Amino acid sequence: MATNITWHHNLTHEERSKIIGQPGATLWFTGLRASGKSTIACALERKLLEQKIQTYRLDGDNVRFGLNKDLGFSEADRNENIRRISEVAKLFADSCTIALTSFISPYKKDRDSARKLHEDANLPFIEVYVNVPLEVAEQRDPKGLYKKAREGLIKNFTGIDDPYEAPETPEIVLNTHEKSVEECADAIISYLKEKKIIA
Amino acid sequence: MATNITWHHNLTHEERSKIIGQPGATLWFTGLRASGKSTIACALERKLLEQKIQTYRLDGDNVRFGLNKDLGFSEADRNENIRRISEVAKLFADSCTIALTSFISPYKKDRDSARKLHEDANLPFIEVYVNVPLEVAEQRDPKGLYKKAREGLIKNFTGIDDPYEAPETPEIVLNTHEKSVEECADAIISYLKEKKIIA
Repeated sequence: MATNITWHHNLTHEERSKIIGQPGATLWFTGLRASGKSTIACALERKLLEQKIQTYRLDGDNVRFGLNKDLGFSEADRNENIRRISEVAKLFADSCTIALTSFISPYKKDRDSARKLHEDANLPFIEVYVNVPLEVAEQRDPKGLYKKAREGLIKNFTGIDDPYEAPETPEIVLNTHEKSVEECADAIISYLKEKKIIA
Repeated sequence: MATNITWHHNLTHEERSKIIGQPGATLWFTGLRASGKSTIACALERKLLEQKIQTYRLDGDNVRFGLNKDLGFSEADRNENIRRISEVAKLFADSCTIALTSFISPYKKDRDSARKLHEDANLPFIEVYVNVPLEVAEQRDPKGLYKKAREGLIKNFTGIDDPYEAPETPEIVLNTHEKSVEECADAIISYLKEKKIIA
């Protein structure tokens, strides 16, 4: 009996996908604060779950206060924050879940690293650019943070005194000042169907 | 339209569980190297998936070379390794997946931290003690590491010159020198059914 204990065959991603009935993917939402990333990700999550599609959202609430609670806001820590999120999203995608990451992620380099990580593992990576003019984001300003940044009370604020590097060739662009949350979520679902990531 | 963009209602774990049809849980496998943790976790993963139960295994292969590739083997890094694994397992459990973690995790304190993290979030945490006498593990020694440790070529080796703190009240104990892999996996499935974690 002791001889067979060391054997273990790792299930391949293909075998798992076949059993689960979906390959999994990471949808990487990026955009300014108050662009609508989390709102759309939430609406999409609900729609997918209602179709019995395994989906999970990674956002500030469940990552910043857990896995990444040791990280601050220095440049190194912000890079490490995104690196870990990329790795965790990859694990979820590998588990055949649709992982939705909802973080400003302002730097092209970081998003490209997340993409490479997935591509190297043959896992779909879909960059969703939640696009909104800065003026609209500032008008929304649900937590009053843009106002504080304009007043100089918050430093290194993306879009104000820190850059936001817009994606050059994202898979999906959502103009949230022109479309409803519903329309944005449905646009993503259409894309996922077209790419056969969901049935 | 801009007014509704800031609204988002987070799906509660209860709502998600109801939709998915299972609450999720973390099964924390602990035991000596070559005790059979990964073998049993692999067998269990396959059995659960075949029943269409969303399951994912975290182990050295997918964690050490990804999320935790920045960590070495100092005491601080080993603690951080287990801390991150705990947090990621918790995310999977929260997504209603059965997360299987397969790491020696020799220290009671670390495992208790993982447990607390789950309990604070009302997520089931099941400690699976993969128990085998050291002599049996040494006989198996699939990678020849025990031999090297005995020869002093590897230092801080759990069970040889580093302690393994056996769980005092684990939910499940598996004596892999007395039972087959199949029997061990089935014992876990019985436990999960009894606790209504799977149907």
